[in-house]
Amino acid sequence: MPLTSNKVGLLGYGRFGQLLAQILAKEHTVLVYDPQLTREEENNLSIQIATNISAVLTLETVFIAVPIHCFQALISDIAPHLKAATTVIDVCSVKCYPVKIMKEKLPPNIGIIATHPIFGPDSINQTTYPLQIMMHVVRDRHNKYHYWKNFFSHQKMTILELSPEEHDKQAAYSQGITHFIGRALKPIIQNTNSINTLSYQHLLTVVQQTCNDTFELFRDMECYNPYSKKIIGEFVATCNQIAAQLDSKKPHS
Amino acid sequence: MPLTSNKVGLLGYGRFGQLLAQILAKEHTVLVYDPQLTREEENNLSIQIATNISAVLTLETVFIAVPIHCFQALISDIAPHLKAATTVIDVCSVKCYPVKIMKEKLPPNIGIIATHPIFGPDSINQTTYPLQIMMHVVRDRHNKYHYWKNFFSHQKMTILELSPEEHDKQAAYSQGITHFIGRALKPIIQNTNSINTLSYQHLLTVVQQTCNDTFELFRDMECYNPYSKKIIGEFVATCNQIAAQLDSKKPHS
Repeated sequence: MPLTSNKVGLLGYGRFGQLLAQILAKEHTVLVYDPQLTREEENNLSIQIATNISAVLTLETVFIAVPIHCFQALISDIAPHLKAATTVIDVCSVKCYPVKIMKEKLPPNIGIIATHPIFGPDSINQTTYPLQIMMHVVRDRHNKYHYWKNFFSHQKMTILELSPEEHDKQAAYSQGITHFIGRALKPIIQNTNSINTLSYQHLLTVVQQTCNDTFELFRDMECYNPYSKKIIGEFVATCNQIAAQLDSKKPHS
Repeated sequence: MPLTSNKVGLLGYGRFGQLLAQILAKEHTVLVYDPQLTREEENNLSIQIATNISAVLTLETVFIAVPIHCFQALISDIAPHLKAATTVIDVCSVKCYPVKIMKEKLPPNIGIIATHPIFGPDSINQTTYPLQIMMHVVRDRHNKYHYWKNFFSHQKMTILELSPEEHDKQAAYSQGITHFIGRALKPIIQNTNSINTLSYQHLLTVVQQTCNDTFELFRDMECYNPYSKKIIGEFVATCNQIAAQLDSKKPHS
């Protein structure tokens, strides 16, 4: 079902919120609220800054792009103030956790769609294959899922329809272990080598693409994904094991 | 100074020896000896298989492409049998160690050139930038360094003239830590994810490019490079430290 108004709300205007606003603004007017935002205007005329949260909460669609560790408190705060016709769409990098919170805290007449856009400010212009967005209908009270699925498809995104569990299992690899290695390499890696292997170039790129986000986002992605801990544990154990194997095999001279 | 004969020797015909023979055979006849080689003929007419090592040792240039942990024994074995006019060229992936061995064991009338071709069977056709070969004159008794430098340049390789120490310091990053991460990821990584981040693709490529070599070559590259152990130690310590940091930051629910 189409939207009754072209105006959509966005709570949270950090690194990803700003990117999401640019994407949404291609076909909508976006009303943004973020308590940490001090400026009152945006360069993009389709992005408006709200001075209080109430104006956003009356809208038909409210995107949530706050840090994962703030998600529960925000959802609890806004739940009593949302209009009955509202659909809430989160963009958290993990999915089991926010879906559980939204189901528990949002009144039954609020629509819920869970999404994870699998790109960020660092990768959006560097990829040669289509951008991906994971989508999952939690409860589509107001029949808005197809509208948003079509919108993201029109932005040339591939829609991945996965359950929250399947998302988090896969994300433990594609973002959990990847960001962990980027963070662990960052303090020791050198950019100035004249010896330039192809594999080393790949690792330098991983560091570049994973270390621009805050440590807080990294920690949230790892700690709120129930499958990440296991994979990281296995990787660290394998590292320790191989290092021990190398230590025990001394050169012959 | 040009070669007096177009025939060059090659001791060792493993994965890299075979690639090196193909490269040398573009402008030379290559006489190969490897005790583990059972076949008597090669498809390439410019590559001949010797049935005993003596035929190779009488040649003007002898390339050595044996596993690093076999290097010292081989050099000691061949040293008394080389002709006075011979130049020995090694292609080990580490450089301080073989240079020390060659200086100690080869008689003063034998020329010595240390090289490290910074590519292998897995990367040679996948790189978009020029292939690199590190070269270092140890003692150029027979003025052959410029001949070989020109030959490799003509193969569209970039010549990196580095000291063995500088090579090993840089290689501890570009191959030491890279191969270590490839090995540590191999047992846990999944190729079947539908969630496909650019960084994760880079890691999958690192695994593909580092795990086709034997564990023996991996161990040699790490253990015979005096700088690798320190870098790997730092990486593993950082991994353990970040994993502990994540463990101490539990989600709020």
